Amino acid sequence: MPNQTIPLDRVFWALGDPTRFAIVERLAQQSSSVSDLAKPFTMALPTFLQHLKILEKHELVTTEKIGRVRTCTLNGTKIDEVRSWLEMQEKQWAIRLDALDKLLEDDR
Amino acid sequence: MPNQTIPLDRVFWALGDPTRFAIVERLAQQSSSVSDLAKPFTMALPTFLQHLKILEKHELVTTEKIGRVRTCTLNGTKIDEVRSWLEMQEKQWAIRLDALDKLLEDDR
Repeated sequence: MPNQTIPLDRVFWALGDPTRFAIVERLAQQSSSVSDLAKPFTMALPTFLQHLKILEKHELVTTEKIGRVRTCTLNGTKIDEVRSWLEMQEKQWAIRLDALDKLLEDDR
Repeated sequence: MPNQTIPLDRVFWALGDPTRFAIVERLAQQSSSVSDLAKPFTMALPTFLQHLKILEKHELVTTEKIGRVRTCTLNGTKIDEVRSWLEMQEKQWAIRLDALDKLLEDDR
């Protein structure tokens, strides 16, 4: 299907993992080759690559292979989308929980 | 293990389902027997009971059987806990995303 994007709650979930968030933080400073990006992480490389794959699948990171080097770049637009989604979620939950509180108060 | 409580992110998840939230809303108005509570829901009773069981397991609802009637009551304290947890999450995410934005801006 064309233009099928992953729902933002899933993207938010992908961003919620501490390792993946640390990768995103490093890429926010600068784009990086996969090998440079992996260096500070103590986990096994396949595990690291799996995290990277999840970030890529959720459109938070794009990678491009030039010659033998694969470079990872953060998708800042997707981060902005997550932020907007999160703000909307926060507003909706505030409304829901306030309404619930009101019902509970009326009942007391 | 004594006093083992379910983590609040799981309680929040339990509350996130539309059917379960609707049950919680009804119980916020008044405690109710299982059969009265189930009436407005068009789903099959076993499905409804499963939702109720999830709410009970996550300590959002308590049930008490007196004679042949099982009465469900909302645990308002747990709702308050979810609200506090949510507010803390919101703050933490705001800090994280602001820091990320700052890194991205420095990079531009």
